[in-house]
Amino acid sequence: LAAVLERVVGPAHVLVEPALITPYTVDWTRRWQGPAALVVRPATTDAVAAVIRLCADAGAGLVVQGGNTGLVGGGVPPRESGGRPIVLLSMRRLDDLSPVDEAAGQVTAGAGITLARLHEHLAEGATGWAFGVDLAARDSATIGGMAATNAGGIHVVRYGAMREQIAGVEAVLATGAVLTRLQGLTKDNTGFDLSGLLVGSEGTLGVITRVRLRLVPMRPVRVTALLGLNDTGQAVDLVSGLRREVPSLEATEIFYPDGLDLVCQHSGLGPPLARRFGAYLLIESAGPDEGVMEELAEFVFRLGLDDDASAVAAGGPGRMHLWAYRERHTEVVSALGVPHKLDVTLPLKRLAAFESAVRSRVAAVAPGAMVVIWGHLGDGNLHVNVIGPPPEDDTVDDAVLRLAAGMGGSISAEHGIGRAKVRWLSLNRSPAEIEAMRAIKTSLDPAGLLNPGVLLPPSAPTR
Amino acid sequence: LAAVLERVVGPAHVLVEPALITPYTVDWTRRWQGPAALVVRPATTDAVAAVIRLCADAGAGLVVQGGNTGLVGGGVPPRESGGRPIVLLSMRRLDDLSPVDEAAGQVTAGAGITLARLHEHLAEGATGWAFGVDLAARDSATIGGMAATNAGGIHVVRYGAMREQIAGVEAVLATGAVLTRLQGLTKDNTGFDLSGLLVGSEGTLGVITRVRLRLVPMRPVRVTALLGLNDTGQAVDLVSGLRREVPSLEATEIFYPDGLDLVCQHSGLGPPLARRFGAYLLIESAGPDEGVMEELAEFVFRLGLDDDASAVAAGGPGRMHLWAYRERHTEVVSALGVPHKLDVTLPLKRLAAFESAVRSRVAAVAPGAMVVIWGHLGDGNLHVNVIGPPPEDDTVDDAVLRLAAGMGGSISAEHGIGRAKVRWLSLNRSPAEIEAMRAIKTSLDPAGLLNPGVLLPPSAPTR
Repeated sequence: LAAVLERVVGPAHVLVEPALITPYTVDWTRRWQGPAALVVRPATTDAVAAVIRLCADAGAGLVVQGGNTGLVGGGVPPRESGGRPIVLLSMRRLDDLSPVDEAAGQVTAGAGITLARLHEHLAEGATGWAFGVDLAARDSATIGGMAATNAGGIHVVRYGAMREQIAGVEAVLATGAVLTRLQGLTKDNTGFDLSGLLVGSEGTLGVITRVRLRLVPMRPVRVTALLGLNDTGQAVDLVSGLRREVPSLEATEIFYPDGLDLVCQHSGLGPPLARRFGAYLLIESAGPDEGVMEELAEFVFRLGLDDDASAVAAGGPGRMHLWAYRERHTEVVSALGVPHKLDVTLPLKRLAAFESAVRSRVAAVAPGAMVVIWGHLGDGNLHVNVIGPPPEDDTVDDAVLRLAAGMGGSISAEHGIGRAKVRWLSLNRSPAEIEAMRAIKTSLDPAGLLNPGVLLPPSAPTR
Repeated sequence: LAAVLERVVGPAHVLVEPALITPYTVDWTRRWQGPAALVVRPATTDAVAAVIRLCADAGAGLVVQGGNTGLVGGGVPPRESGGRPIVLLSMRRLDDLSPVDEAAGQVTAGAGITLARLHEHLAEGATGWAFGVDLAARDSATIGGMAATNAGGIHVVRYGAMREQIAGVEAVLATGAVLTRLQGLTKDNTGFDLSGLLVGSEGTLGVITRVRLRLVPMRPVRVTALLGLNDTGQAVDLVSGLRREVPSLEATEIFYPDGLDLVCQHSGLGPPLARRFGAYLLIESAGPDEGVMEELAEFVFRLGLDDDASAVAAGGPGRMHLWAYRERHTEVVSALGVPHKLDVTLPLKRLAAFESAVRSRVAAVAPGAMVVIWGHLGDGNLHVNVIGPPPEDDTVDDAVLRLAAGMGGSISAEHGIGRAKVRWLSLNRSPAEIEAMRAIKTSLDPAGLLNPGVLLPPSAPTR
């Protein structure tokens, strides 16, 4: 197989030596890994189609990978593939990027373009258009991977997740057939939304090779506020009002004093506020002019917080400083061990109860484990990070996911199901839903070539 | 079959007499009609599931109908069903409506709720939340039908079409299995987006029984301006700037002097501006306060139009007056005959060329036919109405749809494919796409129970 693949992509882009393969077969958290027979790196859609056909002929399974920033093992090979060779298909070389279509407010990006590169491209173009999704892994995460997993991030409260930004995709199916929907027409009711179906299907239905992205107006004026609050309940109350009264709202990030302490110790940053609070809410507004500052400042003023309970920064270094308290949580947690990253959504009215219950639930099943929580509050999305239990022990995962589902929440807000959560899919999805998903999967990929073991449980659901 | 259905829904809700059935089997334009064996009107999801199972057992085909405001024949029976009895499933009795979830900004609506009833419900609740979709057929169009066809309307430029408003659906599949996704979680990456797939599938994959809708903040201050312009090209240039510079923009409707003359003759309205223009652009902004007026007024001022080239109205009667010029186009055209309603999207940069070419193309194939055009300019969406050719003659349809597709456009912007455009689906969708759609259809509805003849061509595409 390596030899025939080399004829398609060139010898430099078929990796077979273990030292070269390892960076692709271990995920960012180090929790998920598995062996690949080889890594193949095509640079064009036609080459992807050829690779898919050759792997199908050879009976291999294909694992598709973008920037390898996924957190549920969906982009790395399974630990065990039952003897079937696994080919890892790296999409990073599909890095074409069209000029911005200024009239439509759209751009076409290859699957391998990183989010940071896309933001740069838009800033360079100075066309007045920006991209509505941003997240901390921006330097590595690729547009293709973000589309395949329907990535969320910090601006969902204003612009929605990836699916909402996507006017269409180009993708290769398991048959090697190429679907192309890159015209970017705003309205196009000509049949099933295949692009929307591929988005979030985690590479199990097709390999996304290019994406037509809708852009949002550039909002040059940004203002950020960090609020010290008593607890999650107060933050939740505040967020509903914010969403209605501050239309320029772009971010509503929550974190807690234990996580903040770790960030300060690890990074050398001083505390952001003069005293310690039960919960911290980082909010950001963006707009065309200074009006957004007034809008946010007025809202904060009306809250009647104590003087030492808020810090506001407009623009540049001050903003980045406030954001650092939030964004550095990720690296701190990873430095402490191999985290169990549990990404859940709760209905807003249950979120405060969950945040308190989850700490005691984890303490009960994994005494001594460290729990660090942050999240995108306006979306009802908390990231529960647990450090301590061994990577292969999923007791904590089970406890946290069952708690979230039992409170009406989702076991995956934005990370997807991947390999990590397949076992618990039925907490959120009924047998009828899983059966419908399996029917669709089988109709498009009868041999189970694409991302075997990802998203869907291996056997038919029990009834 | 009628007898067993009566046991499910009661005798009053199984209609078999021709006089009672006719209103369901002829569409609003009178162009599309076909015979039904009976009409069944269940009131609950369970009853819908029972009806579907009974029809499957009886070998009948099911046609699903909401408010019967569709314009492509997708909600009325086929002219010819090859001897298979057709049951018309009317969804209007599924009219439950939940209280507004104020924290989440969401509401759950039964498929049979009309758009007008939903707007009323939100206004009555005075919760500060509104619904992002509006269209002229609001008094009859149902939420279920609008979801099934991914309806668009006048506010797509700000809020997107139905798919963007839908957090999840409840639907019954051809097996009678019920999929339920009404929790309204903002982020929920647990498998394929079945709700999004059902939206816009025109009843061919499942019957939508309930919809969880995302709401948008109520914007109480509205300002409307009618601009007299030279031509479509000038309007297109203006719209790109508007989208970027007026974030409160909600509508960008275009119409032309010939249509305006018909509206004035038919309705007795006087002309809206002191002289006649080549194209009319109706724009509307909405926001929380008077700021939107300034924003729009400033934009209009900067255009430097002549004094007699614009009319601005803020609020109430003045606004309704300006809107009447646009919204009455529909009824006027219908009063003149059975219109061929051709709903296309063009890339914005080709739209002016299309608008001019389509008039001469129609004149060439249907001399003497009347062409009335209006549209949602910001979406690149024009409604080309042709009056004159007999309903069954599709020469004009062929000419207009080929012209649009040939210029990179879509043959259906918001109406869907229905029965009217199946013949031309391949102008926009490749054999690979049609094959993928057919594979999905077959996987979920192998017997072709749901909406036979709608959306997909009857046989495999040629390769």
